[in-house]
Amino acid sequence: MSVPVAVVGASGYTGAEALRLLAQHPKVHVAAAYARRAAGSRLADVFPQFDGVPSVGELAIEAFDADAVASKAEIAFVGLPHGQSASAVAALHQRGVLAIDLSADFRLRDPDVYARWYGSDEQPAHPAPELIARAVYGLPERYRDSLRSAEIVACPGCYPTSAILPIAPLLDAGLVETSGLIVDAKTGVSGAGRGASASVHFSEIGEGVRAYKVAGRHRHTPEMAQELSAAAGQPVTLLFTPHLLPMVRGILACVYARPTDPSRSADDYREALTEAYAGEPFVSVLPAGRTPDTAHVRGSNRAHVAVEVDADSGFVLAMAAIDNLVKGSSGQAVQCMNLARGWSETTGLESGGLFP
Amino acid sequence: MSVPVAVVGASGYTGAEALRLLAQHPKVHVAAAYARRAAGSRLADVFPQFDGVPSVGELAIEAFDADAVASKAEIAFVGLPHGQSASAVAALHQRGVLAIDLSADFRLRDPDVYARWYGSDEQPAHPAPELIARAVYGLPERYRDSLRSAEIVACPGCYPTSAILPIAPLLDAGLVETSGLIVDAKTGVSGAGRGASASVHFSEIGEGVRAYKVAGRHRHTPEMAQELSAAAGQPVTLLFTPHLLPMVRGILACVYARPTDPSRSADDYREALTEAYAGEPFVSVLPAGRTPDTAHVRGSNRAHVAVEVDADSGFVLAMAAIDNLVKGSSGQAVQCMNLARGWSETTGLESGGLFP
Amino acid sequence: MSVPVAVVGASGYTGAEALRLLAQHPKVHVAAAYARRAAGSRLADVFPQFDGVPSVGELAIEAFDADAVASKAEIAFVGLPHGQSASAVAALHQRGVLAIDLSADFRLRDPDVYARWYGSDEQPAHPAPELIARAVYGLPERYRDSLRSAEIVACPGCYPTSAILPIAPLLDAGLVETSGLIVDAKTGVSGAGRGASASVHFSEIGEGVRAYKVAGRHRHTPEMAQELSAAAGQPVTLLFTPHLLPMVRGILACVYARPTDPSRSADDYREALTEAYAGEPFVSVLPAGRTPDTAHVRGSNRAHVAVEVDADSGFVLAMAAIDNLVKGSSGQAVQCMNLARGWSETTGLESGGLFP
Amino acid sequence: MSVPVAVVGASGYTGAEALRLLAQHPKVHVAAAYARRAAGSRLADVFPQFDGVPSVGELAIEAFDADAVASKAEIAFVGLPHGQSASAVAALHQRGVLAIDLSADFRLRDPDVYARWYGSDEQPAHPAPELIARAVYGLPERYRDSLRSAEIVACPGCYPTSAILPIAPLLDAGLVETSGLIVDAKTGVSGAGRGASASVHFSEIGEGVRAYKVAGRHRHTPEMAQELSAAAGQPVTLLFTPHLLPMVRGILACVYARPTDPSRSADDYREALTEAYAGEPFVSVLPAGRTPDTAHVRGSNRAHVAVEVDADSGFVLAMAAIDNLVKGSSGQAVQCMNLARGWSETTGLESGGLFP
Repeated sequence: MSVPVAVVGASGYTGAEALRLLAQHPKVHVAAAYARRAAGSRLADVFPQFDGVPSVGELAIEAFDADAVASKAEIAFVGLPHGQSASAVAALHQRGVLAIDLSADFRLRDPDVYARWYGSDEQPAHPAPELIARAVYGLPERYRDSLRSAEIVACPGCYPTSAILPIAPLLDAGLVETSGLIVDAKTGVSGAGRGASASVHFSEIGEGVRAYKVAGRHRHTPEMAQELSAAAGQPVTLLFTPHLLPMVRGILACVYARPTDPSRSADDYREALTEAYAGEPFVSVLPAGRTPDTAHVRGSNRAHVAVEVDADSGFVLAMAAIDNLVKGSSGQAVQCMNLARGWSETTGLESGGLFP
Repeated sequence: MSVPVAVVGASGYTGAEALRLLAQHPKVHVAAAYARRAAGSRLADVFPQFDGVPSVGELAIEAFDADAVASKAEIAFVGLPHGQSASAVAALHQRGVLAIDLSADFRLRDPDVYARWYGSDEQPAHPAPELIARAVYGLPERYRDSLRSAEIVACPGCYPTSAILPIAPLLDAGLVETSGLIVDAKTGVSGAGRGASASVHFSEIGEGVRAYKVAGRHRHTPEMAQELSAAAGQPVTLLFTPHLLPMVRGILACVYARPTDPSRSADDYREALTEAYAGEPFVSVLPAGRTPDTAHVRGSNRAHVAVEVDADSGFVLAMAAIDNLVKGSSGQAVQCMNLARGWSETTGLESGGLFP
Repeated sequence: MSVPVAVVGASGYTGAEALRLLAQHPKVHVAAAYARRAAGSRLADVFPQFDGVPSVGELAIEAFDADAVASKAEIAFVGLPHGQSASAVAALHQRGVLAIDLSADFRLRDPDVYARWYGSDEQPAHPAPELIARAVYGLPERYRDSLRSAEIVACPGCYPTSAILPIAPLLDAGLVETSGLIVDAKTGVSGAGRGASASVHFSEIGEGVRAYKVAGRHRHTPEMAQELSAAAGQPVTLLFTPHLLPMVRGILACVYARPTDPSRSADDYREALTEAYAGEPFVSVLPAGRTPDTAHVRGSNRAHVAVEVDADSGFVLAMAAIDNLVKGSSGQAVQCMNLARGWSETTGLESGGLFP
Repeated sequence: MSVPVAVVGASGYTGAEALRLLAQHPKVHVAAAYARRAAGSRLADVFPQFDGVPSVGELAIEAFDADAVASKAEIAFVGLPHGQSASAVAALHQRGVLAIDLSADFRLRDPDVYARWYGSDEQPAHPAPELIARAVYGLPERYRDSLRSAEIVACPGCYPTSAILPIAPLLDAGLVETSGLIVDAKTGVSGAGRGASASVHFSEIGEGVRAYKVAGRHRHTPEMAQELSAAAGQPVTLLFTPHLLPMVRGILACVYARPTDPSRSADDYREALTEAYAGEPFVSVLPAGRTPDTAHVRGSNRAHVAVEVDADSGFVLAMAAIDNLVKGSSGQAVQCMNLARGWSETTGLESGGLFP
């Protein structure tokens, strides 16, 4: 029997991507879609790619109401702005709905860290700190077992996903130093969301590349630090440099780390990754000589990872390419749903990248 | 039981797109892939988007052999260069394989027209003229019944698909004149295929738009003329202007036609389209005020069509947006396969566009 | 002696392009820059491409004041929103400043037509109708003599420039019919200006093409009609279809027209264009077999035009590629300034396109 | 009196960019253009952006001959493939022509290093080792005095220029460690040259980003090491990761370095850069909070540099944005010519970036 799911925050890009994936998922159907400002519209009017798509295209968008969601759906994907998401998740959780949160609200384990990075004058502290411990960080490659019984899933940020996948196994295995990690990541514009602003104007972005929120200013920094520290078993220090590129989707992360034993070769690190990801349905460790390309994972839930060593400087270079809206957000969320419901983990996510 | 299919010409873009769609099709599995120069490689080495994708990623590419195909597959998608494709299709057809030809070889009903547009010094005439009559033009919206019993499917060109869909119903109904049709179409670069050349160099294409093969020089012209004449019930005259745009996928066609009765309104034409496409699973007729956008159909088999009338000049403007590799090629081919095999027409093709 | 010029509306794209061209013009220097909301900023803070550029980079942006402009500059480029521009131009003209208006305010000769297309509830009529007759339409290829003594220059719209250049000489010579002209034009995003909106979001534009304001809804339609009617010596009827492409700069216009004498060849039309543009410093008529590409005129004041005839339909296809911000706006404005001041027409505009 | 210059290798992108800049340079005129395969063509047929551009558009391309160059020009810009360039430069130098080499042939001071990185079976050693010592590395910000009397200029690579500018002054001043530098650089496709190949196919590049020639495999690595070691006064070790982005022009380099004194602030480093570049006509040190964007330097000879410190990891992050074809190649070459001829260094290079 098909399980009813709801998408809350259906007018944003992560909401739309969740809808796209859920519409083709054989175990569920989209029972309702919520978006405050778009309430009253057909979904296909807000996102014309759904025009004529059975079951979702004609869906009428509603204003969010936790009771209504609970009456219609067993599972909810919540893609609201941080702060708002936590409240919605709390209300849904209370009503027994499996809440899969696409926002940042339940990613950080420490409410003080959350408050420092996400607090505002109106809402200085976490809105539902008592639920943080009940949320599972939605990275199946690292928290698969916990996800099988999750009641709240905190889907990872796109950048953290791209950084954790290639380097965490090397930290796990003690192969690289825990201090002075550098994450130099490059992303497409869709990660900024659908809101109009000068910084996403085509004419300002086209034919240009720039770093932004450098030197510890990007909110995904503490999330990376938390997860990489967990992998290392001790606090890591890291520098994160995000870049904006003239493309719509994709993140390429290059993580630079110093080896704990300089005598190891690229093959050693590649073997460590290969072993770590043996059996993983969505992670490909590329062979020597190949580098990940975001064009090859566009639209798919796959991650391509690779590792090399630089003879001159000694640095280990671990790389990953993902689609920020799929493995970096809504696809990974579906993967978590599959786990939480006991379905095959790849259900609805099998397809390869849309290339070219 | 899953039906085995083969893809011949698996190293090109239309071949790859067929593989992507077939890999997620619930009724078939890809049993073999063929490509002369890439023979011996894993498919994922030629197209990294398939790395790790179950069933297709590890497929070993073989050199084409009709007997081998017939021993492994019931259906073959053939995406070879014109001229070569006809011979392969003939060999496969003889061996009882349902041949779905992605090339131009069986699109034109008249072998003389074929010879004029596609003949070469080495091969001046059609290589298998006796089969032309047995091939069905693979546009389900116009040849659905014939496709149900097709043994050879001649998949339409991408440009003709984009032009026929918005204007043929108006010709059918006698609403527009049959002389002086103008098709001004804009396409992404993937339509030119994967071969390297100066004309598809990123630096030559980026930030530029140009028309090419104008004034009756493009080979899709006689195909459009054939099909639009069939719709009109009399010969049409038309001008086709293709354009190359700095994007990978998509075709937007604008067809300009003179009305047979100038008193009709845009609503009249829209109603004609709406009626013609009532029940069509992949064609959306957009409401007044909306125009098709290729970004909204990327990766999907859908066509968005619209029509307007210009008060000043009297012209009818009919538009369509498709993905040239999906509805313009391999997706439509899968749709035809579904018909030919008696499956639900939308099987494996339900998903909406990958947007953004 | 260097002549002081001012740019009013310096925070928009046409203002910035005027500044770029004026900064390298040997006869003038930028004495002041005006922009209401950006007043108080350094120009390089608003447009970082001017960082370190002598004379303009450190310019302090001021709030517009006609007396201040008149005290500092002999010439002003006015790139304000329509409606506002007319008032500024009137004030500057009264103070003896040569006003070169980049807006639409003085392009239409008939104030009633202006009111119909540009009027608003707040400002239903033209704000300075008495000056319309004193403004010269700033297309040197057609109004060179008048421009030599112009006091107000009404710079043409980008689309009209791209449409008039290839077809007007054929109308002049009576070679094409005056009814049923079709202008199918494709433009980059910069033409929409610097204001943020959903319609210029990179993620909404990338990898997509769409027509907009079709069937007589775009404000450049009456301007084209006016100028093409002037060329033809009688009213023309035309259909204008603008398209938005995933690129920053450039317009490619394809104009379709019926020949008055079907026996003429492409060479005949090409000869007519060649003759019309003999001696023109910025218009290249391309030889047979070549088509214009916006990538080849990016950043330059040049127009590439070409013409072909379609044997099947009989249509004449006249094409032009320009940079919408240069020949389509600020470069043409500088060309007009050169004429109005008696300088060599190409001063400061000699450079070829920035390609690749 | 205008000085005659020649461009050798006029059919490539760096040759074309040299032609663009020389055509608008007030002290020189292009007397001849050379390109083997394109010999016999008009320049405008090979590069349509020069169509109608006075003096260069109608230039007939010739096959290279050193005597012919010497009879026509005092200065030659040589943009041939490495190996070939050295021979041409030697022949021109012998004939008294100022040779400005855009290739890699005279960049490396050590012929053994050259042989290791650029040697081939046909030409294992440097073709003109005796001239290496006479060539001056064409980075005016570091070798201005030597350039004033240069007879051969070895123009720096695009990546080295982008890496040296932001970090060399910090190495000069002993502010950062000399070991373990990381250069993570992102470039547009034009850096790969005009030759057609799968790796520059629009459909392969569009919507994707990837690293290539990672971990010490890119030929610009030894050049960076040479120049940064010269700055540091001791050998540096460095890791260079180049990336290919879906844009035509531009390089953004991020250089990561460890501070020698962790107590220093970003302001300290910024001050060091500001002091180093005081009076430099083409380098802007951006204020705190702003990051370089390649879109802002496109088409201009300017470099935007910035520096930040990461509190958590301690790393210094120094960044630069340049146009790879201008400051990274032909613009810098013109700057060197200006110095070598005793002209004002900015002659012909004053313009700001083409933005948007």
